Amino acid sequence: MILPGDGIGPEIVEQAMAVLEVASGKFNLGLSFEQGLIGGSSIDVHGEPLTDETLKAAGECDAVLLGAVGGPQWDTLEREIRPEKGLLKIRSGLGLYANLRPAILYPQLADASSLKPEVVSGLDILIVRELTGGIYFGEPRGIQTLENGERQGFNTYVYSESEIERIARSAFEAAQKRSGKLCSVDKANVLEVTVLWREVLDRLAPEYPDVELSHMYVDNAAMQLVRAPKQFDVMVTGNMFGDILSDAAAMLTGSIGMLPSASLNESGFGLYEPCHGSAPDIAGRGIANPLATILSAAMMLRYSLNMSEAAEAIEAAVSKVLEQGLRTADIYTEGSQKVTTAEMGAAVVAAL
Amino acid sequence: MILPGDGIGPEIVEQAMAVLEVASGKFNLGLSFEQGLIGGSSIDVHGEPLTDETLKAAGECDAVLLGAVGGPQWDTLEREIRPEKGLLKIRSGLGLYANLRPAILYPQLADASSLKPEVVSGLDILIVRELTGGIYFGEPRGIQTLENGERQGFNTYVYSESEIERIARSAFEAAQKRSGKLCSVDKANVLEVTVLWREVLDRLAPEYPDVELSHMYVDNAAMQLVRAPKQFDVMVTGNMFGDILSDAAAMLTGSIGMLPSASLNESGFGLYEPCHGSAPDIAGRGIANPLATILSAAMMLRYSLNMSEAAEAIEAAVSKVLEQGLRTADIYTEGSQKVTTAEMGAAVVAAL
Ligand SMILES: CC(C)[C@H](C(=O)O)[C@@H](O)C(=O)O
Ligand SMILES: CC(C)[C@H](C(=O)O)[C@@H](O)C(=O)O
Repeated sequence: MILPGDGIGPEIVEQAMAVLEVASGKFNLGLSFEQGLIGGSSIDVHGEPLTDETLKAAGECDAVLLGAVGGPQWDTLEREIRPEKGLLKIRSGLGLYANLRPAILYPQLADASSLKPEVVSGLDILIVRELTGGIYFGEPRGIQTLENGERQGFNTYVYSESEIERIARSAFEAAQKRSGKLCSVDKANVLEVTVLWREVLDRLAPEYPDVELSHMYVDNAAMQLVRAPKQFDVMVTGNMFGDILSDAAAMLTGSIGMLPSASLNESGFGLYEPCHGSAPDIAGRGIANPLATILSAAMMLRYSLNMSEAAEAIEAAVSKVLEQGLRTADIYTEGSQKVTTAEMGAAVVAAL
Repeated sequence: MILPGDGIGPEIVEQAMAVLEVASGKFNLGLSFEQGLIGGSSIDVHGEPLTDETLKAAGECDAVLLGAVGGPQWDTLEREIRPEKGLLKIRSGLGLYANLRPAILYPQLADASSLKPEVVSGLDILIVRELTGGIYFGEPRGIQTLENGERQGFNTYVYSESEIERIARSAFEAAQKRSGKLCSVDKANVLEVTVLWREVLDRLAPEYPDVELSHMYVDNAAMQLVRAPKQFDVMVTGNMFGDILSDAAAMLTGSIGMLPSASLNESGFGLYEPCHGSAPDIAGRGIANPLATILSAAMMLRYSLNMSEAAEAIEAAVSKVLEQGLRTADIYTEGSQKVTTAEMGAAVVAAL
């Protein structure tokens, strides 16, 4: 299922679909696509950011490729029907608890980082973020009026052992496939919910003797990501800390327009989307970077569709266009060639 | 009241006291000091990280200067009597809701940052963090066993309007004294408690027409701090987000050993402490950087004791020793002169 969403979503998804179609032909994948609405574009048509029908249809597909949601025109709506709720609904509705967010520095784009080259060169971190629990979904939540007449807002940060265990296993397994180093991030010196988090990680660790587990407080993790990010390989954390740290980590590369993400359920079914947002400020101008979405499509082929050959070919094609010096505005530096969204997409297709 | 605490705490506080004593003589401040125990050193003596007597005595002083708390030898204790609880107890017990954390890049130390010089040169951000509420103190909290036998951890992220209002006013006032730019950080697209946060900030804004208020989601804020930190002047946020963002911001400077902090209550009474922790790995070796504590002492003179002349003199003395090329190990770079904790303290005293 293809869910272009809002803002630059439709533009970047269009390029990813073109790449998928060519890959499908070349590798005989027999891909077929169904399109649906999510976010503001769904609100405009259906009055809600994700209909139950679209959710159901998405669940019946083999995988979902999403653009991005949100924009200022929907910001004044009531909270319950804002674009973001569509995203939260599909994550939760399809049980996509394991959010994999790589932060990779492309050697061709090393200049784009705000960090010194020696600090980030070769950076390759995978953040595993719990995506269907924690404070994002915890109850009770709301705004209530106290006896003294003033209002009070409240949310609940909650995890059960089984929720922690399944995301921990995703992270241990990811670490096994990489360098065998896993850092779990919590705030166990203050928050009981993360005391339990740490306990569960420690309990599981002996089952993964090839993985070296460490723990770090979230404030220190934010600091270490800035100071010396290459100390990390796989990081695992809850929904809220993961939201913050994965964005910080992505920005270390200077090229958030390059980073894909996968959100998986127990059976490997997944939703794939770029790490960046819907960028309403540049929507419709044909200058957005489609590569994060194209790389998300490659992740989709690998993780959900078992088509790693095609995934690798797409990733190689992306590398090639970067080698050729093609850059959308967000990653442009002097001396390279500035291209539009469509030109970038076409170049990847050609490189395939 | 002087609370040296644990790890490097006693070493760095000793230097700050020496500086304060000399300043007291020079400017006729008539300072006198009382010492108390907090953190692990209090646990060792009293079995708890902060006694009610020490808390009371601290509240009766004009201000509190604290070193740092914590260390591995207390990590296996029950949660309720860990060193950190002493810190949380004094913050809450004395109503120190306004935590001011500057992130300043010292021009002499520009090399120490992991960011490119052009990204951070001249960096001067003030993070105003709410310190006595939010998820740090919210009830209910704990770990419970569910009907199905598995355990569940939970914490409550809660703010009332009046709690938000008083920290917002601290931030608006700080912004008035600086560039007039205030960025409030929340996650209003997901968390109701921060929807209320945003509302209260917006409601107060017209009372501060000389301050330009903006809002930013916490994930974006973490990203923007890495990408282009100089876009910020004053940032205000809740306890948990403030913990994370202030550490990230501090690390942008590369010199967390240089950064002081103040935690104030309604009447300007305050606790002053370095932004860094107790660094148990280097404790007792005489190599810790005392400058953050010395600068915290200067902040104390300015904010709580109304002795800005002496505060400025101390800050000037710190600048001078940096100019002289003196560096503790944490900020050492080739070509400068490596000094011990005591030598650095003595140099500041001499420069005074
Ligand atoms: C849009 C928002 C609800 C979402 C989140 O906070 O999860 C986004 O920031 C993300 O990280 O995918
Ligand atoms: C030690 C810990 C409880 C504390 C906090 O989280 O507030 C520390 O990280 C800080 O920022 O002062």
